[in-house]
Amino acid sequence: MLEHFFSPKTVAVVGASREEGKVGHDLFKNILRYGYTGTIYPVNPKAESILGRKVYSSLREIPEKVELAVIVVPAQYVGSVVDECIEKGVDSIIVISAGFKESGTEGAKREQELYQKIKQHSIRMLGPNCLGLISTESSLNASFAADMPAEGNLGFFSQSGALCTAILDWAVREHIGFSKFISIGNKTDIDEVDLVKALGDDPRTKVILGYLEGIKRGTAFITTARDVTKKKPMIIVKSGGTAAGAKAASSHTGTLAGAENAFDAAFKQSGVLRARTIEELFNYARVFSFQPLPKGPHLALITNAGGPGIIAADAVEHSELKMAAFSKDTINSLRSALPAMANVYNPIDVLGDAKADRYQFVIEKVIEDPNVDAVLVILTPQTMTEIEETAKVIGEIAIRTDKTIVTSFMGGKRTEEAFTILSQGKVPNYLFPESAVSAVDALYRYSLWQNKPLPEIKEIRAKKEKVMSVIQKLQHMGRQHLIEEEAKEVITAYGFQIPKSIIAASEEEAAQAAEEIGFPVVMKISSPDILHKSDIGGVVVGIQNVTEVKRHFRGITQKAHRFIPNAEIRGVLVQQMVPKGKEVILGMSRDPQFGPLLMFGLGGIYIEVLKDVTFRVAPIGLQDAEEMVQEIRSFPLLRGVRGEKSADIEAIVNNLIKLSQLVTDFPQILEMDINPLIVFSRNEGAIVIDARISISL
Amino acid sequence: MLEHFFSPKTVAVVGASREEGKVGHDLFKNILRYGYTGTIYPVNPKAESILGRKVYSSLREIPEKVELAVIVVPAQYVGSVVDECIEKGVDSIIVISAGFKESGTEGAKREQELYQKIKQHSIRMLGPNCLGLISTESSLNASFAADMPAEGNLGFFSQSGALCTAILDWAVREHIGFSKFISIGNKTDIDEVDLVKALGDDPRTKVILGYLEGIKRGTAFITTARDVTKKKPMIIVKSGGTAAGAKAASSHTGTLAGAENAFDAAFKQSGVLRARTIEELFNYARVFSFQPLPKGPHLALITNAGGPGIIAADAVEHSELKMAAFSKDTINSLRSALPAMANVYNPIDVLGDAKADRYQFVIEKVIEDPNVDAVLVILTPQTMTEIEETAKVIGEIAIRTDKTIVTSFMGGKRTEEAFTILSQGKVPNYLFPESAVSAVDALYRYSLWQNKPLPEIKEIRAKKEKVMSVIQKLQHMGRQHLIEEEAKEVITAYGFQIPKSIIAASEEEAAQAAEEIGFPVVMKISSPDILHKSDIGGVVVGIQNVTEVKRHFRGITQKAHRFIPNAEIRGVLVQQMVPKGKEVILGMSRDPQFGPLLMFGLGGIYIEVLKDVTFRVAPIGLQDAEEMVQEIRSFPLLRGVRGEKSADIEAIVNNLIKLSQLVTDFPQILEMDINPLIVFSRNEGAIVIDARISISL
Repeated sequence: MLEHFFSPKTVAVVGASREEGKVGHDLFKNILRYGYTGTIYPVNPKAESILGRKVYSSLREIPEKVELAVIVVPAQYVGSVVDECIEKGVDSIIVISAGFKESGTEGAKREQELYQKIKQHSIRMLGPNCLGLISTESSLNASFAADMPAEGNLGFFSQSGALCTAILDWAVREHIGFSKFISIGNKTDIDEVDLVKALGDDPRTKVILGYLEGIKRGTAFITTARDVTKKKPMIIVKSGGTAAGAKAASSHTGTLAGAENAFDAAFKQSGVLRARTIEELFNYARVFSFQPLPKGPHLALITNAGGPGIIAADAVEHSELKMAAFSKDTINSLRSALPAMANVYNPIDVLGDAKADRYQFVIEKVIEDPNVDAVLVILTPQTMTEIEETAKVIGEIAIRTDKTIVTSFMGGKRTEEAFTILSQGKVPNYLFPESAVSAVDALYRYSLWQNKPLPEIKEIRAKKEKVMSVIQKLQHMGRQHLIEEEAKEVITAYGFQIPKSIIAASEEEAAQAAEEIGFPVVMKISSPDILHKSDIGGVVVGIQNVTEVKRHFRGITQKAHRFIPNAEIRGVLVQQMVPKGKEVILGMSRDPQFGPLLMFGLGGIYIEVLKDVTFRVAPIGLQDAEEMVQEIRSFPLLRGVRGEKSADIEAIVNNLIKLSQLVTDFPQILEMDINPLIVFSRNEGAIVIDARISISL
Repeated sequence: MLEHFFSPKTVAVVGASREEGKVGHDLFKNILRYGYTGTIYPVNPKAESILGRKVYSSLREIPEKVELAVIVVPAQYVGSVVDECIEKGVDSIIVISAGFKESGTEGAKREQELYQKIKQHSIRMLGPNCLGLISTESSLNASFAADMPAEGNLGFFSQSGALCTAILDWAVREHIGFSKFISIGNKTDIDEVDLVKALGDDPRTKVILGYLEGIKRGTAFITTARDVTKKKPMIIVKSGGTAAGAKAASSHTGTLAGAENAFDAAFKQSGVLRARTIEELFNYARVFSFQPLPKGPHLALITNAGGPGIIAADAVEHSELKMAAFSKDTINSLRSALPAMANVYNPIDVLGDAKADRYQFVIEKVIEDPNVDAVLVILTPQTMTEIEETAKVIGEIAIRTDKTIVTSFMGGKRTEEAFTILSQGKVPNYLFPESAVSAVDALYRYSLWQNKPLPEIKEIRAKKEKVMSVIQKLQHMGRQHLIEEEAKEVITAYGFQIPKSIIAASEEEAAQAAEEIGFPVVMKISSPDILHKSDIGGVVVGIQNVTEVKRHFRGITQKAHRFIPNAEIRGVLVQQMVPKGKEVILGMSRDPQFGPLLMFGLGGIYIEVLKDVTFRVAPIGLQDAEEMVQEIRSFPLLRGVRGEKSADIEAIVNNLIKLSQLVTDFPQILEMDINPLIVFSRNEGAIVIDARISISL
């Protein structure tokens, strides 16, 4: 859908310049020098020819259709150039020029006008304020970067133009090739969602890489990425995470949620691998680019030195991978062929005097073993070591096998030539074994994602109209926070269980209610004006008989009047006293990028002190909900410790799904806490004790 | 103390060989070729000359004193060569030969004999089964490595010989220089403790680096490292820690890998920086080698590109460093001199068109700011960027200032020359800003350690003889586990508080005891044969009056007789019922490498499920004890949440110190748990409810 950007037949460079060092010159020169085979038209009213090419004074003059216009004129002229584009029927433009949103209010206004203009005429725009793009498929370097990368299967987009220049320079040295290389600038029109989709559909792109500081359309990002990552891997470095932006939040969930948790949840739910550093991004990229996915987690280590073998085994232990346990056959054939001192168990030590043939024998044996899914070959450059020859042998084996093979040829000068040989053989080499293990681990984690079914979001039955009427009433009154009775109406409409309760306007009514419900009971003040009931003595628990009920009715209402004199008192709620169980919290807050962010954790200190919580973006499926519950560190407490019975985990999962649907159905709900949900033993359900909900007005 | 190893006047190579590719040849050639200025004597009964040098048929023939003998003969002949060394009066030997402990029982026996022989004659020995050593100070390459590193101020020792070869090769490419480079092999005699001491005393070594799979003498390591790290930094990669890694370790050099927690504690207590990977080891090493320590945590970021600045700021947030807040003066002068679009706050964005002079101006201003302790300069290679010139400017500033300066010139090919310039200017450059921040962070954390006073281990008053008599009694009886009364005798001898209690042999005695102690009381069966008292109904709590006391006396003793008919019943313990408080656990177990390992954590699920505990090697000082308490994740629960009063943290600290001294005074104590220690509110102390102690027989 962005084909005019990546493979245009004709490109116009508006603002092409004769002056070396100017962006309009460098960019035009880049298009010329790297073998772009389409037609290129420099446009500049003040020049006759640039670099031997005839210059056109305006787009109108160009004798044929222009598929892509690259605009390099000062910001204040970009608008009129776009007018010419409209006239000329250009549907794809790249605006390199800076001086828009990033430069202040005036620029922001200019950017807004630009956006409206292109939207009206269905023009797609990359930028403004970007480095441009490179498409190796058409040998098009429509950027002012100083380098042209080799052709390869990595598609890269970056929100930082300068980072592009650094990565290009680095990629040239590291022989890393790209299919597309895109600087997205201010992403006024084309953003990461468009590019993920385009690179997802691009047959020349095997791996999608990105550097992002933020995401514009969170929901679209999740759904698009989720589809694309089922076909090909996507690895993102997201920075700017820790920037303090603590907004006031009234709920636990709101306090604990934050951009970082939302990103982690969104990436997890959409199969995006998050790299922690740029280095890790490319460490991962190389293995995805070169090697097949492993069928399982079992890694075999082959080394000519003990120490690095131990280092690698340690790294395996800290990953999702497992050390492969070889079959008897493998062990027997290794034992019969290797010197007595060699270790034939994992990690296999082929000893310091191993030449290429010994490595070859061992690797071939190991990849035949059904218990092995991936192999890491470690080599240290010892006196007898045949470095290049071993690299060649590994490359040949890698081509024949469908198992994952990576190497860690450790060293520098003496192993340099071998790095190139391995690269040519499509075997990613890592200077240190820890990085090699981490790369295979990423490959394996991605394979798990690929095999995981997409979440099935089942519609549960709910009384939506009840919720709608509560919300409408509040919006009508201009009140943001629901009182307890309203909150309960909302959640019971979605099937949450709450304690039996009756509102009582008098001592007599309270006594009658208590007898109907059965002792012991709890009594709570009911008032839209009192949010923190306990703080004013508005809650009494464990009431055993009618006399007590009457006495507390008086006490509670008197306290309410005394502490909050103008509060509207609706009476006192008499409630079933819920038996003991595990206290958990379910919550939701709205993330500015991804929308409804669900939270789950154990109540009390687990949330407040240990911050032991987990997040997902709603809507979630059954498996997501199950994972949420299992992910918290204190999960063993739910499963039961010291011979205790398990809590009703199924009930928690079901309640999470109800919450997910509720907040998806009603975007008016801004924040909510179900705190606590008391969970009983397996098969005995869960009851909501309190819920706080606030809505948008 | 190891001067004959590092600067010998005469070296003999026993087993020097004419045959290329043989270790005896390569090693001899290495000594010859790198400019060693002492005298070198090849020894080989079967050769006349090697590489133009006259060969001696035995050590005896050598006409002068031999200061260092390097032995490269097969394992079975090493013993007789050492006999010759003894005869000749050689006091320093390196045994390169393999075929010792690492090769099985026979080799282990051979190694033991070798060790006894050298000990008897006060010979120091490096190896066996090692690569040798390199000392750039005397241009001595007494190893069979293929490279000779440049001279520098890094002292490196490694338990893996092959890792040495890889690191040497890498160091040559990275221009990393060494003072000493030592392969420690099986470390039969000279081990890491000796080397830490030697490198600590070596004026040519500024930074000590090590790769270890285990530590032989834990206590000596801690005390030696603690002294040395006050003078110079020490960075260690310790592998073989995890289960899978440990398995590999035992099959490799026969090292018994110790518990990870013990290593972490020992390193923390001795100021050793633990690097997670070999890469990190050298990332840290370069900054320590080149740059001064920062006076504080405040880092200034200067960048010509927004993205990498954000990446670096994120990394700062995840470290112990802080983003520097510039003074008004700095901000004003930056604002007046930089283009309007530049960001003059931290991270400072000098913009993409910044040339060397703009970088220079900004760096100079920033290092003058008293709020800045360290500077990271980031550069991406953009069109206008003066890469080499900027590197030169930074190098010049770095020489003049005493503040820490590091760089992240991002890129590859185009920034290569600048890397060399920066290296020459003693400015460590990092390809990615995250590594640069992590390196400065290591520098800062080390500066904290340098300024931290060594722990003062104060002797507390204790009744040692009481403990001694309990232990002697048990050893005499051949019983390993102390019964409750014995354990209480031990801990009260060291000042632990326990509930008031009286042992009662009859109903009457029990009633009297309860009245003396005051109600409510607890009653417990007292028997050396019943360890798990609760399980048989041997414990009753909350007893309110004399009638109940009598009834429970009967009940408890009857149950004991019924469940464990042959148990010796000493009566029933009547005990003060302790008020509520926070339950914590104090414990100790003996680590095979480091000895008494103290543990602290909150009781119950915090330890069992969340594994929220912390460790130190005893003896500990006051500050260590305080850090232990503060280190656990659930510390806020002790300090008090939700307006609760703080627990008596001082009491916990004091009890940790008592425990530390107890287990230091009595190495016979193998394991103990004080569980729970009930801690009351501030100034109200803590009481031990139960203690389990086991001793060695």
